[in-house]
Amino acid sequence: MAQKTFTVVGGGPIGTLLAISLARHGYKVGLYEGRPDSRQTNIYQGKSINIALSDRGWTSLEKIGISAETKNQAIPMYRRAIHGVDGELSALAYGQEGDAIWSVSRGGINEQLLDIADDEPSITTHFEHKLVDIEFETATATFKVRNADELVVESDYAFGADGAHSKVRRLAHTQPRFSYSQTYMPQCYIELNISANPDGSHKLDKNALHIWPRKDFMLIALPNPDGSFTCTLFLNYSGEPSFESLQERSAVEAFFQSNFADALEYLEDPVDVFSEKTAAPLFLVHVFPWSFNQKVGLIGDAAHAIVPFYGQGMNCGFEDCAELDALIPKHNHDWDQIFPAYENARKPNGDAIAELSKRNFVEMSDLSGDRKFQIRKKIEAKFSNRFPEMWTPLYSMVTFSPDVPYSEALRAGDEQNRVMDKIMTLPGIEDDWDKQYVMDQLFGMVSETLGDGQ
Amino acid sequence: MAQKTFTVVGGGPIGTLLAISLARHGYKVGLYEGRPDSRQTNIYQGKSINIALSDRGWTSLEKIGISAETKNQAIPMYRRAIHGVDGELSALAYGQEGDAIWSVSRGGINEQLLDIADDEPSITTHFEHKLVDIEFETATATFKVRNADELVVESDYAFGADGAHSKVRRLAHTQPRFSYSQTYMPQCYIELNISANPDGSHKLDKNALHIWPRKDFMLIALPNPDGSFTCTLFLNYSGEPSFESLQERSAVEAFFQSNFADALEYLEDPVDVFSEKTAAPLFLVHVFPWSFNQKVGLIGDAAHAIVPFYGQGMNCGFEDCAELDALIPKHNHDWDQIFPAYENARKPNGDAIAELSKRNFVEMSDLSGDRKFQIRKKIEAKFSNRFPEMWTPLYSMVTFSPDVPYSEALRAGDEQNRVMDKIMTLPGIEDDWDKQYVMDQLFGMVSETLGDGQ
Repeated sequence: MAQKTFTVVGGGPIGTLLAISLARHGYKVGLYEGRPDSRQTNIYQGKSINIALSDRGWTSLEKIGISAETKNQAIPMYRRAIHGVDGELSALAYGQEGDAIWSVSRGGINEQLLDIADDEPSITTHFEHKLVDIEFETATATFKVRNADELVVESDYAFGADGAHSKVRRLAHTQPRFSYSQTYMPQCYIELNISANPDGSHKLDKNALHIWPRKDFMLIALPNPDGSFTCTLFLNYSGEPSFESLQERSAVEAFFQSNFADALEYLEDPVDVFSEKTAAPLFLVHVFPWSFNQKVGLIGDAAHAIVPFYGQGMNCGFEDCAELDALIPKHNHDWDQIFPAYENARKPNGDAIAELSKRNFVEMSDLSGDRKFQIRKKIEAKFSNRFPEMWTPLYSMVTFSPDVPYSEALRAGDEQNRVMDKIMTLPGIEDDWDKQYVMDQLFGMVSETLGDGQ
Repeated sequence: MAQKTFTVVGGGPIGTLLAISLARHGYKVGLYEGRPDSRQTNIYQGKSINIALSDRGWTSLEKIGISAETKNQAIPMYRRAIHGVDGELSALAYGQEGDAIWSVSRGGINEQLLDIADDEPSITTHFEHKLVDIEFETATATFKVRNADELVVESDYAFGADGAHSKVRRLAHTQPRFSYSQTYMPQCYIELNISANPDGSHKLDKNALHIWPRKDFMLIALPNPDGSFTCTLFLNYSGEPSFESLQERSAVEAFFQSNFADALEYLEDPVDVFSEKTAAPLFLVHVFPWSFNQKVGLIGDAAHAIVPFYGQGMNCGFEDCAELDALIPKHNHDWDQIFPAYENARKPNGDAIAELSKRNFVEMSDLSGDRKFQIRKKIEAKFSNRFPEMWTPLYSMVTFSPDVPYSEALRAGDEQNRVMDKIMTLPGIEDDWDKQYVMDQLFGMVSETLGDGQ
């Protein structure tokens, strides 16, 4: 039997990891990326874009056989560093002792994976190949090649790993019964920067994710290995305050002064950047199916573009790859079975992390806000510490429990919410939250729920 | 001030009603329809397509100043006629004495509205004009005209009233922050026919909507004035049984024999029709915004394509028109205010009826099914009869209560569901449902809920 061939559209971290997985299962893979090779051209222009990677991401890499060496270049963030309006700093651990999420450079991890792909003899990688068209019946793809004619690539199967704005997904609108949604969040964002100290050290605690939570908007900062921080300002598109309402330079200055005074001494020209940059939209994309004619599939952001508020986008894409990696031997390379098994296994999890990431804006931006919300979190934390086997906080399920599928985390989190809604209606709870009877009530309710559900 | 002009794309019932409303408020309206004029060409080829119109539809027509003469050609349906698998017939009233939904011919009501539009001197109607493009900044529309060159139409404002497959909506994908979703239902449908008796009378009770509920699929029949019934078979696209699985003629025959034996003596060649026709998909479309640059709006199915299981599609479109009709004088013809007010008022209702119509498949197709479901409905009906001011059944809120917005009906219905979920967990409820203590418990719960919510 001739070696089966795959076209993978998109040479980002997900597409490259997928290519490696397919090659190691014996397929011949053509990996096509529209942009130049960042290892040869400095396409990032010195700009760091960092993302959070957590246990799901690392576990998925390991499952595919990629050792944790990528972790060496990542910075562990053990806690949230919360910056109050008055400049007061407080810390909130992400999990138990030692639990961390990791700030990694998107470009860095991509290049590490591309290097590994280069070592696989059955992968050929093609940069500056932009997808023009794909036939969903045959997996035949057409690329626009820089300074060259169009290239038609025939293969047995193809995957679109081409990100949130996926061209493969856009072309799939011609397919029958293609359910599709794109939803814009009220927030947009711009990126800001905090440079390193002259000696290369970090100006803020580097083992924390910094948050300036202001309820309707927030600023966050993630550390880079070079001593800088990449910051993101999330702010509404319209309304008050918003990117639309803050037009005058003086208004922008006043906005930063009154909301981020302590960050102003570190941020590089935030008012200039705010005034010059166009805010980028945040959107979610849901589609189904994720595969067409047992020939062409979607993976990663192409299948489920989500918002960044849970730091799970790349983790989820890596999990997609790990799931597929496990299904190939399970179904003995029969793609008539693998494609449906893959989408049925991953779709509920893609939907769940989309929902969780959308909701988490409130958690992040309200962290230092509403007192009742704070009390609720404290009761949960106390109960979880006392009875860890009865209550894993939702954040820990999502971030530190790779064996718990996102869909299960969402379901269990909703169950916890229902219980906590009841607890928060107890008379006097705002004063009594630390008393024993609250723990007793919660214990009773959770025992009952466990009895029902498990 | 020069008379302001509107381009209305789509000359179906919604577009025509909108044109009439705009004309009566003093606007000059061009009404453009892609198909020929059905009053001059028999485009329906003798085929009746009927739809359900209910109090919301009639009320909206009246608000716009169109008297109830259209009602003369409609057939009132006071009840569901439920056909069991064994041929047993049972009746279930839609509401209180005299409450009815009305079977109207889509073509008939469209033609009546077109006649009324013809009497408005400031409306010009253009058939066989297919929209090619629209500029969302200027409302300039380009039409392909049959046997003629393209026509470019400039106007102050435009509306897309061009239905579930709206071209205006498809073109709006170029607009920034355009949230969009299309979702396919598992069911598809084909239309079947029951012809009239030789004397023009109906072969089945004409004052009922006939349902053959079979849980995962169902057949329905609506009466036409000419004595015929238009029937629709809703069946899954795939699985067992489905349009996909029923390929052999013998299997189709067996399917009708075992599920619709009593209908077989009336249906015209159902097996032939089933085998020859391609099943049509059912889908929902959600978009936001419904207007662009205070220049171009969406209305009716173009703004909210829903599924037919609540019989509310045209009612909702007519309500859109009535809302707009009221907002024009309220905002003194200031469309910078009217467009946002319109979409903010109607979007939650469009979303609510979409959700309700999707859910109602289960209600319709399970009517004679699950015993527990039946008991639940009986308890609700009994309570509502005894305490009508405390409990209006959801169906009545949606269908017979035009003063209750769809969004409020959905909310109240969910509240009722929560209460009934609890009632249905009472031990022995399946035997005891008719006992007094059930009414007492329900009374207590509803009183508490009303206390909270109102």
